Amino acid sequence: MTSTALLTDRYELTMVDAALRAGTHDRPSVFEAFGRSLPRGRRYGVVAGTGRLLELIERFRFTDAELEWLRANDVVGAPTLDWLADYRFTGTITGYREGEVYFPGSPLLVVESSFAEGVVLETLILSVLNYDSSVAGAAARMVSAARGRPLAEMGSRRTGERSAVAAARAAYIAGFGASSNLEAGRSWGVPTMGTAAHAFTMLHDSEEEAFRAQVDALGPSTTLLVDTYDVAEGVATAVRVAGTSLGAVRLDSGDLLTLVHDVREQLDSLGATSTRITVTNDLDEYAIAALASTPVDSYGVGTSLVTGSGHPAAGMVYKLVARQGADGAWVSVAKKSADKATHGGRKHPVRVLGASGTAVSETIYVGDEAPASALASGRALHVPLVVDGAVLGGATGAAGVRAARKHHAAAVAELPAQAFRLAAGEPVIPTVYETV
Amino acid sequence: MTSTALLTDRYELTMVDAALRAGTHDRPSVFEAFGRSLPRGRRYGVVAGTGRLLELIERFRFTDAELEWLRANDVVGAPTLDWLADYRFTGTITGYREGEVYFPGSPLLVVESSFAEGVVLETLILSVLNYDSSVAGAAARMVSAARGRPLAEMGSRRTGERSAVAAARAAYIAGFGASSNLEAGRSWGVPTMGTAAHAFTMLHDSEEEAFRAQVDALGPSTTLLVDTYDVAEGVATAVRVAGTSLGAVRLDSGDLLTLVHDVREQLDSLGATSTRITVTNDLDEYAIAALASTPVDSYGVGTSLVTGSGHPAAGMVYKLVARQGADGAWVSVAKKSADKATHGGRKHPVRVLGASGTAVSETIYVGDEAPASALASGRALHVPLVVDGAVLGGATGAAGVRAARKHHAAAVAELPAQAFRLAAGEPVIPTVYETV
Repeated sequence: MTSTALLTDRYELTMVDAALRAGTHDRPSVFEAFGRSLPRGRRYGVVAGTGRLLELIERFRFTDAELEWLRANDVVGAPTLDWLADYRFTGTITGYREGEVYFPGSPLLVVESSFAEGVVLETLILSVLNYDSSVAGAAARMVSAARGRPLAEMGSRRTGERSAVAAARAAYIAGFGASSNLEAGRSWGVPTMGTAAHAFTMLHDSEEEAFRAQVDALGPSTTLLVDTYDVAEGVATAVRVAGTSLGAVRLDSGDLLTLVHDVREQLDSLGATSTRITVTNDLDEYAIAALASTPVDSYGVGTSLVTGSGHPAAGMVYKLVARQGADGAWVSVAKKSADKATHGGRKHPVRVLGASGTAVSETIYVGDEAPASALASGRALHVPLVVDGAVLGGATGAAGVRAARKHHAAAVAELPAQAFRLAAGEPVIPTVYETV
Repeated sequence: MTSTALLTDRYELTMVDAALRAGTHDRPSVFEAFGRSLPRGRRYGVVAGTGRLLELIERFRFTDAELEWLRANDVVGAPTLDWLADYRFTGTITGYREGEVYFPGSPLLVVESSFAEGVVLETLILSVLNYDSSVAGAAARMVSAARGRPLAEMGSRRTGERSAVAAARAAYIAGFGASSNLEAGRSWGVPTMGTAAHAFTMLHDSEEEAFRAQVDALGPSTTLLVDTYDVAEGVATAVRVAGTSLGAVRLDSGDLLTLVHDVREQLDSLGATSTRITVTNDLDEYAIAALASTPVDSYGVGTSLVTGSGHPAAGMVYKLVARQGADGAWVSVAKKSADKATHGGRKHPVRVLGASGTAVSETIYVGDEAPASALASGRALHVPLVVDGAVLGGATGAAGVRAARKHHAAAVAELPAQAFRLAAGEPVIPTVYETV
């Protein structure tokens, strides 16, 4: 079990050091992860990374190796090293289900623990939520732009090698059908796909030899990449080699808006009427929408997906919102600066639904609990994730990914139709604060 | 040793599967990693990730766990599983030194091996080079914009938790002085820094109590965050608590262009003339340049750095450029499409230097070797990295990072002054191809 404890900003540990010395480290505290706004112009956001995060928190332990490095580098004093040696999170984490949609101010994750136990998780929590939600938010837009046609995630090579696995997982939760990334298949049960690159064609003495080698190995239901040389010749060769039961042809270059029509006509004229066309050339949600009128069958998306389509970090922050004082009384706290205002206090968010089941508002009750009346016409958004240090089942592993994918589809189905406009706009429902 | 073998697109393995069956998998081949262009508007790029990549390649092995998953999921056939079980890279890798600057078409990494041995490394090579070079390219611009003032990388929370470590490493190579990321300190010897967040101030009953706790633990040379409530009061409290030997104050919000002047005046009036001012509020290279006229002492940069300042993937590709045919003759290969044209053949890049030692062109000799005359007025850019499967010393580990940082500084010093303009423009020197 690899420790995740040093995937952490140094100041988390120096804060523990100073608080221990002052005797304030044990003050019961409430931290909250949220986004002050959505990525600019987006109508809604998508929470992703939660299940993955819970597993990383279970591995957040300071073993001898971490402690020795911290000691040798004089990061914190001896009492803090002792405290870290015993660290395991014993508090409670409540949050939005993975796959849920969210809005500005939505309290996505609430961590209740001592100050020190909660503050050291900040960096890890934000790294995971910011990256994974960035990808999921972009993926959801691509899924709605594709209008039911399947999408595959193919961006592993355009992001860090471990972020690639997280991206494949997040895209699958947001409705992509498959990924090229094998580790995402092994770790998270994401279906994997892929057949061949241009290099494979160029390895062989002719395109025909390459296609024959591929069909011999993978069968005629494979996808042949037909644009290494001339597309029309490539398509003719593909059907000649694989027959009219050829699974699909892939286009990775050129003007897809005209090319897809030409290739469809050619395939049909050759009798390959059930051979599908998949396109993979620098797509984003706008290019996908533009291809709606063409007879394309599926999309492969890389760079724009794994980099959040212009918003590579979702903009989430992690803030102390309440803590007990020396007298045991709770104090709501909030930074005061005009440009980074936050709402203090423990929050209980409800997605208020109209008569037809369509979302109307994100109503956040600040106080002890949401009133029962609010739940009559809405859905409570918080679920327990960690109770007294124990990670609850259901959210982790491949089963958690399947549950998140299912929940995402249900949550998106509640959104008003304007949510799916690609043009920049305001959040599709307002965030409303109510003090109870 | 954790295997890196499944951090790979499925099609790399299905290509091996088909080539094995066709008997073409063993054809000696040359692959090349390069960028067709720089990130838009950039004058130069910075290679990063190389040392990290070489360590990941050493761990690219298919153990029983990987093979069992591939078998259970029917990814490739039994002969391919046997081939993968024995896989270790036995070829040669030549490339740009880590930290080197690069231009469109620069052959950053050349992999010479059998087709199958080289093709399976594609995804891993590109994941590392694309992400790390994206960060290093952005970091280098921030370093030149800061005109000698120190910069710290603080973006761990804005990118995937493992990419955060790579980002800290890449930024340090490109001239940043430190990082907040502890794992980057442990794994790569990057100096780490950080003291406290707003949460620490709000944990305490007053700003004064918080500052006192911090100074007690970390000494008066610490950095106090003075903008949780009112900045002028925060500065006054900071100097009252820590004395005039206070190390630094940090500003993380507000209009820095005026605020820095005000805080400097206040510190000086309080006698804290050696107390430094560090700013950390959503900076990028443009904001850093805009602060040049203020008495700021250092910068902390987060989101824009770890997301490549608008270019979160450097745009590198990995292409087969030559391979032997069945007759043993070498064939230069290249995809023909107009929008993705590549140059076939084995390449030998030289940074041609003018009389003053200033870079004049990136001249790429295509053929067996660069002419001796070219090296009289230039610098050969390729160095051996892996020879017959053995990773050479020098590029890996913390020593490799130090060497890369040093080399980067030297390579940047060769660039013409126009390289450091922040405004969008063309690559600062042309890329020239010469056939030899």
